Amino acid sequence: MSDSFKTSRRAFLRGSAAAAAGTVAGAASANSGPDPLITELQDWTSYTGVGVDETPYGMPIEFEKDVVRRNVEWLTADPISSINFTPIHALDGTITPQGCAFERHHSGAIELRKEDYRLMINGLVDKPLVFTYGDLERFPRTQAVYFCECAANTGMEWAGSQLNGAQFTHGMIHNMEYTGVSLRTLLEEAGLGAAGDLAGKWVYVEGADASSNGRSIPMEKALDDVLVAFKANGEALRMEHGYPVRLVVPGWEGNMWVKWLRRIEVMDGPVESREETSKYTDVLADGTARKWTWVMDAKSVITTPSPQAPISHGYGPLVISGLAWSGHGKITRVDVSRDGGVTWQNARLAQEGQTKALTRFYLDVDWRGEEMFLQSRAIDETGYVQPTKAQLREVRGLNSIYHNNCIQTWHVTPEGICENVEVS
Amino acid sequence: MSDSFKTSRRAFLRGSAAAAAGTVAGAASANSGPDPLITELQDWTSYTGVGVDETPYGMPIEFEKDVVRRNVEWLTADPISSINFTPIHALDGTITPQGCAFERHHSGAIELRKEDYRLMINGLVDKPLVFTYGDLERFPRTQAVYFCECAANTGMEWAGSQLNGAQFTHGMIHNMEYTGVSLRTLLEEAGLGAAGDLAGKWVYVEGADASSNGRSIPMEKALDDVLVAFKANGEALRMEHGYPVRLVVPGWEGNMWVKWLRRIEVMDGPVESREETSKYTDVLADGTARKWTWVMDAKSVITTPSPQAPISHGYGPLVISGLAWSGHGKITRVDVSRDGGVTWQNARLAQEGQTKALTRFYLDVDWRGEEMFLQSRAIDETGYVQPTKAQLREVRGLNSIYHNNCIQTWHVTPEGICENVEVS
Repeated sequence: MSDSFKTSRRAFLRGSAAAAAGTVAGAASANSGPDPLITELQDWTSYTGVGVDETPYGMPIEFEKDVVRRNVEWLTADPISSINFTPIHALDGTITPQGCAFERHHSGAIELRKEDYRLMINGLVDKPLVFTYGDLERFPRTQAVYFCECAANTGMEWAGSQLNGAQFTHGMIHNMEYTGVSLRTLLEEAGLGAAGDLAGKWVYVEGADASSNGRSIPMEKALDDVLVAFKANGEALRMEHGYPVRLVVPGWEGNMWVKWLRRIEVMDGPVESREETSKYTDVLADGTARKWTWVMDAKSVITTPSPQAPISHGYGPLVISGLAWSGHGKITRVDVSRDGGVTWQNARLAQEGQTKALTRFYLDVDWRGEEMFLQSRAIDETGYVQPTKAQLREVRGLNSIYHNNCIQTWHVTPEGICENVEVS
Repeated sequence: MSDSFKTSRRAFLRGSAAAAAGTVAGAASANSGPDPLITELQDWTSYTGVGVDETPYGMPIEFEKDVVRRNVEWLTADPISSINFTPIHALDGTITPQGCAFERHHSGAIELRKEDYRLMINGLVDKPLVFTYGDLERFPRTQAVYFCECAANTGMEWAGSQLNGAQFTHGMIHNMEYTGVSLRTLLEEAGLGAAGDLAGKWVYVEGADASSNGRSIPMEKALDDVLVAFKANGEALRMEHGYPVRLVVPGWEGNMWVKWLRRIEVMDGPVESREETSKYTDVLADGTARKWTWVMDAKSVITTPSPQAPISHGYGPLVISGLAWSGHGKITRVDVSRDGGVTWQNARLAQEGQTKALTRFYLDVDWRGEEMFLQSRAIDETGYVQPTKAQLREVRGLNSIYHNNCIQTWHVTPEGICENVEVS
């Protein structure tokens, strides 16, 4: 046996006492005699189960039927121009399964066959091109995990807490592994000589759906890490995420991740489309608007406990967990407060932060039923610290819809019930 | 504009010519006049699509209905004791979605509610314990992406190529992000003082299904990186993957990743159960058996092109892609041969290798219709090099079923058709 093995052995014995309460509280045998489940024959040991031929594509088990995307009816006029929310309160880890990854579209999700798919590159290029889906598959591919956050995520918190649940306050986000072709590669293929000096040039991107959802992207970003993606978490994009091809714009607001990507035009300026003037800009207190607010600043939220995931066990060990992310790069630290921001503790990052991707954090505490005002604050590799709601309002007023990355507060009662509240 | 931006600009212009053939071949406008799809109104721009309220849990689009797990009827007597295969020929990236991640069970997948779930730790422990599902959620959690490979993956290649498709030759593998509690933490909770010197001690793990599928694991591994997991790719395990709790034994054969985990007994030796004597051992040429062959050695396979994913486009740019993995740690290099192992080229790893997880590799080539004998070989951080089929047979004979990590060969015709072949 190695020395380190022995050292670890001693270390884990010290750890035992701290966690003991949870186990004793939960084990049925501790208080109420033998556990009927383990003293009687367990039902499922006496029959054979479902064969491998019955589930060519597997779905979640029926007991998890509540772990689904949910929309809010009053949010928009019609579900085809609305959004639903990732059930982040019920997930763990960092990857979001496609099946419950939030979706937002402006004129509904369309059914577009690969055979019918075309992508045009035109404008200030040497050679305008039209690619089929098959063409795209012949270019060198790249891949990475990125978060996609709607600019309106947490937007209802500007003027006051309105939605009671992390799914609704922070669920316009997902985090998937994308595979595709670098946009740079495709622009190279068309040739950018005709564009002259690339400084100050833009690309305009639009989708094949009725809304077209056109957005302008500065050339420097277009040539940096933008992907023309066809797979998410290994498999084809889902219809509602832009099948067969969407744009992935790492770290930037989700509206720019154009779905059913149809056209990319190289231009000498931005288009100033509807989606970057009347929408996706932030109205400030004085009536002027912040524009070109593309990058999603560092942000975090505690997913458990939270209003939809109250504490359902007794006092003692409690796992506090949540998600943190930054459009500027890696998360380097997350702090958690149990007293509404008066004191802070360093949370444990489950894995080292990845650039422009979700990071899971945990804080393991011994909860004795004290009232808590739970908060988390993210710090990214640029040194940026997630602001309080008061700090944001001081600068931006109350009229914005987008880009609210403020610290969220959950009030936890001695019964373990959680509510969305504000602390002054 | 920065200097590196200018440099890259020049570099991508050089790259254009190489890829041009693919684009020209694929763009409908190049040979046959205007593309009807882009000169006429595109159908999907004239209607609104599916609203966000219609897909609370999303499924793949109908056009991808063939990207599913498949089983082989003759492989076992009954589907409840059989296996189905991940459609790796149709996936990209590294994450396997749960819905199409292979499954293997010995008596069918069972429906076990969280409320009915119990996990016992007994044997040589200070304090035998029974955990509910709720108890497990109160211990500190950890997470990582790991591959799970059935020991029998590629087993049909020992005596000759029998299955024509990467899904069937190499699809008993999946790669997911797991979240759970370290087995070490739970063993600490029960206390290992009663076990005395831990060197030579084992744990015996079994499931709640009728087969129970018991396996012995040496204590050193049990205290290393084994997880008692409840989430995969962020959400609850699927029924067929052991809902609500399975064991994750990174780098080790899939049979040890016990599903519906029911009991962990600390013992002073291995049980030598059916699953580690008559099964999951490798019969050698002389009739003796290799035993305790837990670690899955470094291995790789080209997923495209492959028999189920032939080359469907003309000559010119071709993306060769595949997966590599090692139970001993990280993949550090993958080589690809187009001439059956005579000459090798260094493939590009899509991301830096992660320990005991799948690594995606790519080789971008200019294919001019030449016949190819495509092979890949993986090298891991220990310096181990994936062996040829001949090298493996020389040592192990032809009688084995398990642990075949040989180099795979696909024969590619000038028409792009791929077949499973052997090269001498």
